[in-house]
Amino acid sequence: MESAVVASFLLLLCCQAAAAAAGATSSHRRPPPLTRHHASPLVRQRRHVTAGDDDVTTAVPAMVQYETRYYTQRLDHFNALPASYGTFQQRYLINDTFWAGKTSPIFLYAGNEGDIDLFTNNTGFMWESAPRFGAMLVFVEHRYYGESMPFGSKKKAFKDASTKGYLTVTQALADFTSFVLRLKSNLSAPAAPVVVFGGSYGGMLAVWMRLKYPHIVMGAVASSAPIRSFYHLTDPYAFYDRVTDDFKSESNNCYDVLRGSWAELDGLLATKNGSALLRRSFNMCNGSSVRDIPSLLESAMVNAAMTDYPTPSGFLAPLPGYPVREMCRAVDHPSSGNDTLAKVRDAMNVYYNSTGASPCLGGEEDGDPYGMYDGWNWQACTEMVLMTYGLSNRSIIQPPWPFNFTDVLDSCRNATGLPPRPFWLEAEFGGYDIGNVLKGSASNIIFFNGLRDPWSTGGVLKSISKSIIALVEPKGAHHVDLRFSSKDDPEWLKKVRAKETRIIARWLKQYYKDEAVSGPVWIPPN
Amino acid sequence: MESAVVASFLLLLCCQAAAAAAGATSSHRRPPPLTRHHASPLVRQRRHVTAGDDDVTTAVPAMVQYETRYYTQRLDHFNALPASYGTFQQRYLINDTFWAGKTSPIFLYAGNEGDIDLFTNNTGFMWESAPRFGAMLVFVEHRYYGESMPFGSKKKAFKDASTKGYLTVTQALADFTSFVLRLKSNLSAPAAPVVVFGGSYGGMLAVWMRLKYPHIVMGAVASSAPIRSFYHLTDPYAFYDRVTDDFKSESNNCYDVLRGSWAELDGLLATKNGSALLRRSFNMCNGSSVRDIPSLLESAMVNAAMTDYPTPSGFLAPLPGYPVREMCRAVDHPSSGNDTLAKVRDAMNVYYNSTGASPCLGGEEDGDPYGMYDGWNWQACTEMVLMTYGLSNRSIIQPPWPFNFTDVLDSCRNATGLPPRPFWLEAEFGGYDIGNVLKGSASNIIFFNGLRDPWSTGGVLKSISKSIIALVEPKGAHHVDLRFSSKDDPEWLKKVRAKETRIIARWLKQYYKDEAVSGPVWIPPN
Repeated sequence: MESAVVASFLLLLCCQAAAAAAGATSSHRRPPPLTRHHASPLVRQRRHVTAGDDDVTTAVPAMVQYETRYYTQRLDHFNALPASYGTFQQRYLINDTFWAGKTSPIFLYAGNEGDIDLFTNNTGFMWESAPRFGAMLVFVEHRYYGESMPFGSKKKAFKDASTKGYLTVTQALADFTSFVLRLKSNLSAPAAPVVVFGGSYGGMLAVWMRLKYPHIVMGAVASSAPIRSFYHLTDPYAFYDRVTDDFKSESNNCYDVLRGSWAELDGLLATKNGSALLRRSFNMCNGSSVRDIPSLLESAMVNAAMTDYPTPSGFLAPLPGYPVREMCRAVDHPSSGNDTLAKVRDAMNVYYNSTGASPCLGGEEDGDPYGMYDGWNWQACTEMVLMTYGLSNRSIIQPPWPFNFTDVLDSCRNATGLPPRPFWLEAEFGGYDIGNVLKGSASNIIFFNGLRDPWSTGGVLKSISKSIIALVEPKGAHHVDLRFSSKDDPEWLKKVRAKETRIIARWLKQYYKDEAVSGPVWIPPN
Repeated sequence: MESAVVASFLLLLCCQAAAAAAGATSSHRRPPPLTRHHASPLVRQRRHVTAGDDDVTTAVPAMVQYETRYYTQRLDHFNALPASYGTFQQRYLINDTFWAGKTSPIFLYAGNEGDIDLFTNNTGFMWESAPRFGAMLVFVEHRYYGESMPFGSKKKAFKDASTKGYLTVTQALADFTSFVLRLKSNLSAPAAPVVVFGGSYGGMLAVWMRLKYPHIVMGAVASSAPIRSFYHLTDPYAFYDRVTDDFKSESNNCYDVLRGSWAELDGLLATKNGSALLRRSFNMCNGSSVRDIPSLLESAMVNAAMTDYPTPSGFLAPLPGYPVREMCRAVDHPSSGNDTLAKVRDAMNVYYNSTGASPCLGGEEDGDPYGMYDGWNWQACTEMVLMTYGLSNRSIIQPPWPFNFTDVLDSCRNATGLPPRPFWLEAEFGGYDIGNVLKGSASNIIFFNGLRDPWSTGGVLKSISKSIIALVEPKGAHHVDLRFSSKDDPEWLKKVRAKETRIIARWLKQYYKDEAVSGPVWIPPN
């Protein structure tokens, strides 16, 4: 089971690390949580989304049209070492079709851990809001992701700590600031209000941007931003407990079967005959092994919980609406047999092969299509040591994994060669006693969280003031509010988006009043 | 005159640079403003304050008792390069005599450009308030000043840009943050409210600390903090115009005589006979030349304007109360002759020799007793390019010096070998439209400014909200409110301090209410 356990905890680096762990361990002693810290708020794994897939669930709406441009960005904003004056080209995508003039809003997406296209194509709320507000749309890529590579190439940027070391949150925020100032200067639009949007880690960046740079962005829409997912701020078992609750809410049988499946998989993987049975039961792709099954199962479950959207989606994988329900339906009503293996296989099939286009399991061909892993693994072991480490006794993923912060930090130190700084971001941005602190020192923030989303356990779930508003949806998943709308959206989701729209309109109204300038007339939602 | 003009503009590096300029120029073409940018908000020059001077005006009150301690500080907070994990010992001075327990306030002085002792000894308001509030007093030294030297020694710290480059405002603020968190942790006092105080550049740091780290400091008392003294935010002629107005307010004759003196000095310095006359008229110290007279005169005038305190003081030099008035009195009623030279000499004597202990003019022996110049000259030419560059036609310092930002930046580039970043601090902290921005994103700040102080031209002079309060005193000078009280203080000064005390008490009351903890009972001022 040990390799299975490791594999089941693999987050971004699912399969490479799983293979390494499988090769490296042979006793039943639990291996150290070497790879358990690579939990990106955005994705833990993305598999089998074929590039160019024209399935309706993954197609990009026709309104997503933009120009690609580049900004010459400074390497290090916070010191004056000669090397810091180095520059790189930061990519941004821009659409000014809807912009109603120089005092009209600029909607800025704070790019997170991946190619900016991914967020541009999936943040439908911005696209659908822009005409309503006469807003310009700008999506700016995060340094060290996509094309925004210091040192001229990804290879050089990720050479070692002396080059990767510029990949930090504070530098990324200063990038955005510097970029916005230049953009507004180029537009001759000093009075254009900037609203920053972000989902997941991008939502964290949006909040932090509003906290640190209120003179740059006059409001932040932070969707599913786990800004409290740091040590001592959030229960480290809560993340997986929420995944557990999601599945349990669909059916107790589903919970019991999946929770029991790990021991069964473990037992089978421990014997030759068992492994042979698994090979007959699961159609593994070339390059994958049955040892990967537990990690693939965990990834499917966690990602289904995160993206438990009400309508079919193609964000992390092509999925049906309510994928957790579908996985549990597969467990409760298996089509290919009545044993645990058949139930697990059918459940995984919902996640990995909902379109029927992925006949084998665990393919590696497009393991990191949005360029997330290298950057995120570095961030997750330097500053962004998020609280996703513990498995409680009642977890649907078994066996329990006691939270041991020292082990987490040790494994991070091994991974980066540097001491992790797990307290730095809380020192820089706060977190402790956040309500009282922000009440007097911030405004104009929307914190959206869907409670189906395990990352909501690290989110801000209570409104702090009249203009720092928590929108909490029991049925919502990871930044579902930011997605393109669909005719099949449930009423609560339509209402959330309308509410967000009205809040933004209120911010803008106040802004124009304060600045004594006129903005465009906005079109309220129905 | 050219060397005199250069010299008259020398700010911190008064005499060394004056000598260099004197040696380097020989035509009447105005030399480039090579040394005009070293304007520290705190001091432009400090001379003739003999160490150990037991004159009452410079003596440190007996209540100033502290322990000296050191904190192991990180070299660079904002990137993860291996070198950034280096550390240095940051000095802080601490007094817990008055501290009333773990929920009682911590009054933190944000150390500025010099030995922390200087600020500790001169910030009487904190010492006198501590018993009233049951507060702990902590004075933390700014990196690259005093003993708080990275790389083990001042020599190594200031070797070149690759070592000096860590001397930036943002690093200093992160130092304070990191330090406070450790201090509170060591004290087991997580609920102790921290109020940050600072004067001059320290006041800028205090404001910026409150803006960027509201979770670390719950209020800021920023005295004479020229946070608007950046390009396009403040008229670059205003600083010297205010010096002008200060002298003019005492007497028009004083203004006329001093304004006319530069041409006369210039004329004399241009001829052999004139220089000989100056040598007979002024008793220059060894190592000083009559060519330094214009720079010494300017420094005396600017410093007298800054420290135009109502009672005798010893902050920058041992001075009588209202030194501008005294200098003008010397001009209007010269004791040693009725010509311009006699008037200038007598006026300078007020500034440089009020105690009678400095018989000669321009001595170099303790040119930088508080270790300010090296650090400030770097800061002033990298980030802190403050707006003190222009001399208008009506300036009391003549001839006019048109403001030319390109020249300023060029000379900074020559001085540091790096491109200056004059817009960076505004990008980082804001400044443009500050009222509307801070209204919604900050609270609990006192901006004190005395309008006699030329630095008040870059200050915040209008209250922004119920808790961001500008206290403006027409008769006040540079952070006069923070000085030790005196029985001879005028009523307005007593009232300002009482007002500040009540405002701080209000912040604390709200804090204890919000946190639902009890703090000590405070003793209101009379």
